[in-house]
Amino acid sequence: MRNIKLILEYDGTNYHGWQTQARSGKATIQDTLELALTTLTHEKVITYSSGRTDAGVHAWGHVANFKTANTIPATAWAPALNHLLPPDIRILASEEAAPDFHARYSASGKTYKYLILGRRQPSALYRNFAWYINAPLNVTNMRKGLMFLIGRHDFSAFRSSGCRAKSPVRTILSASIKKRGDFVELQIEADAFLQYMVRIITGTLTEVGVGRYRPDDVKRILASRDRKEAGRTAPPHGLYLVSVNYPQ
Amino acid sequence: MRNIKLILEYDGTNYHGWQTQARSGKATIQDTLELALTTLTHEKVITYSSGRTDAGVHAWGHVANFKTANTIPATAWAPALNHLLPPDIRILASEEAAPDFHARYSASGKTYKYLILGRRQPSALYRNFAWYINAPLNVTNMRKGLMFLIGRHDFSAFRSSGCRAKSPVRTILSASIKKRGDFVELQIEADAFLQYMVRIITGTLTEVGVGRYRPDDVKRILASRDRKEAGRTAPPHGLYLVSVNYPQ
Repeated sequence: MRNIKLILEYDGTNYHGWQTQARSGKATIQDTLELALTTLTHEKVITYSSGRTDAGVHAWGHVANFKTANTIPATAWAPALNHLLPPDIRILASEEAAPDFHARYSASGKTYKYLILGRRQPSALYRNFAWYINAPLNVTNMRKGLMFLIGRHDFSAFRSSGCRAKSPVRTILSASIKKRGDFVELQIEADAFLQYMVRIITGTLTEVGVGRYRPDDVKRILASRDRKEAGRTAPPHGLYLVSVNYPQ
Repeated sequence: MRNIKLILEYDGTNYHGWQTQARSGKATIQDTLELALTTLTHEKVITYSSGRTDAGVHAWGHVANFKTANTIPATAWAPALNHLLPPDIRILASEEAAPDFHARYSASGKTYKYLILGRRQPSALYRNFAWYINAPLNVTNMRKGLMFLIGRHDFSAFRSSGCRAKSPVRTILSASIKKRGDFVELQIEADAFLQYMVRIITGTLTEVGVGRYRPDDVKRILASRDRKEAGRTAPPHGLYLVSVNYPQ
């Protein structure tokens, strides 16, 4: 069997996240991709994903892989699948992967971006693509708060109560906050992420940005290892999976 | 009567352009705005626009004005209208204008942006927000071509056959092309624009970008004053009205 790796971009607005859900009525990205793969190959194709994304979350570079006996050339999967997929899911690249490549278990890290819009009135063009906050944000203070999170820490305060990861320890390899007009762009690279981790970090830093928390509070919240100390979970529609990173 | 000026942002995807159309079934921005104004004021409000935008075109800063006897404070129109408008139309600001202010006739110029995506596969996230070209674009050559258009010229080659403007002479005050990753961003400021002018300029420069025209050809096309010499009309969904400019 061949092992094919795909890089996907999607607009998560109309999907119930990545993973197939037995109970949900809304389509998932995985279902939609597997249907296209089955149509193309006449095989029952199962995809392996770099991770689950929540409903409404977007991706610039989600990675998935699948096994197939089909002989379609490696780079031809992308255009062939794009003919079958709805326009809010696009395969950016397809390639032949090593037999033991797994989109999730082979990954060494991931990069997420979170987009916040801080101004008086909401945006029409970014209504599904950025979290609107009705206030200007103090980016300098947000950046100070973020710096406490870089490195290897117990991120218990920044994961959902339902998170099932065995260890709450993760390493944030790099993180930055940029201001572009009224938009604030938070980017975080880590070895792996806990459930809602980026969204809870964003919610907490936004409290710093509007002045309800001081930058130092982020240090205290991290040390507390208590979800209730952190800010709210930022909504999914400002979040983007930028890339999944693999060892060279 | 008071004269209120509005600045609007909208996602044009689901609209038949700005102007009310008797025959069209699809809503227009103008219809939708006037309905919200009438709901708010209980007056039959007529809006005056900085211009007509084509179906599918977006705006970061469209300007409109209207006369009213209503006493709502000037800055309160924006949030009040945003409660009534669909989320793909947003009023960014509202202010009291001089009695003789007219969104179109008082304007000294406008700025448009056109977004092109030049790469192998289309974009899911920008499917309604950039023109996808299945080729890399030579931005240096596009920029050389664009330079021939700056200044006061007869733009007959760059207007639609149905354009009803009396004079084809317009002044491009400034223009630039920037590359951001696979995106190419064309920005043009002019005293006024002919019908489809930005879209035909974009279509022509894209021919330069993919190598079918040389940069010098743009000079020749301009001099020809013949629409048939120019490239095709770029699709509306890559076009944004950035701002309408008024004398200080």
